[in-house]
Amino acid sequence: MNERLKKQIEFITEIDKLKNIYRQTYVLGEDRKENDSEHSWHIAILAFLLAEYSNEPIDILKTIKLVLIHDIVEIDAGDTYYYDDDGYKTKEIREEKASQRIFGLLPDDQRSEMYELWREFEDRKTPESKFANVIDHVQPIILNYSKQGIAWKEHNISKNQVLERNSYMKDGSEDLWNCINEIVNDANKKGWLK
Amino acid sequence: MNERLKKQIEFITEIDKLKNIYRQTYVLGEDRKENDSEHSWHIAILAFLLAEYSNEPIDILKTIKLVLIHDIVEIDAGDTYYYDDDGYKTKEIREEKASQRIFGLLPDDQRSEMYELWREFEDRKTPESKFANVIDHVQPIILNYSKQGIAWKEHNISKNQVLERNSYMKDGSEDLWNCINEIVNDANKKGWLK
Repeated sequence: MNERLKKQIEFITEIDKLKNIYRQTYVLGEDRKENDSEHSWHIAILAFLLAEYSNEPIDILKTIKLVLIHDIVEIDAGDTYYYDDDGYKTKEIREEKASQRIFGLLPDDQRSEMYELWREFEDRKTPESKFANVIDHVQPIILNYSKQGIAWKEHNISKNQVLERNSYMKDGSEDLWNCINEIVNDANKKGWLK
Repeated sequence: MNERLKKQIEFITEIDKLKNIYRQTYVLGEDRKENDSEHSWHIAILAFLLAEYSNEPIDILKTIKLVLIHDIVEIDAGDTYYYDDDGYKTKEIREEKASQRIFGLLPDDQRSEMYELWREFEDRKTPESKFANVIDHVQPIILNYSKQGIAWKEHNISKNQVLERNSYMKDGSEDLWNCINEIVNDANKKGWLK
């Protein structure tokens, strides 16, 4: 086996750890939290299923790559809950360090590609990364709603917190932002948000 | 919310069940088996990371879509272990029925797209589906090897079974087929295969 393929297999083995990084969202069919790899699979499907709702035309392959790899840094940096303001203060430094180590396992060309994809996702400036960030947060809201707001209740989250934290969504997709408003308002009416 | 988006969200919620369909492969970092959504995420990354090893040029977006959706039918049909010859006798009928119900939740155009992607994966005739099938089985071999052949031992699998069952790989990728031979021969030398 040549050196290039060896490095690629080392990376493939390393990222298996994403299956052990648990988020605050629950899966619907079992009494347990979802992990990052499950979440990434789910939103990769959303990336092509819901692409029609992006405000701007997007390159779907690029968008899928963004969502497939965006959480890999959490293998070292851990998951930062979306409503954890303190956690967000150190998130960037922790994740930057993680990106160097983990993507650094790859051959140079692929290390650069992965690192740039990850930065693009985080910087939220291109049409693809704006839309990728929308679906990254549409998915947990759908799951939470389908499970009677379980994670929101656990963390004492208010309707305003959800709407303020996600208001950037309208830059990526007005349609999905409207849909999320409808869902969050209904969840609030049902007493699932503070 | 319009009817189209309602159907899409119903599908998104339905496929969450893939997170509860367990395979025979183990994850590396915990003492538990991998589920279909984790596996699908993992091989979607392989689809673009290892595309250079496909015998024929491939459309990477198509290949990623194939692997992201290929196991969704197992929500109804269950996982059929790759070395379970009896299970394979009824696999096609069970999965065809499942594909009708699950993809049938979608708006017509997307139902057709999903169904055709799934059939393409199963029929293994296009360059993309040949390569998608290769990585579908490269991933569990890498994981099994990295965990001292745990699932092979559990099911009493022989070296010849692995090589015969996977020999189709050379049609999709001679490079990865050679790599798998190396790994399987080494696993055999270490006593991890019957």
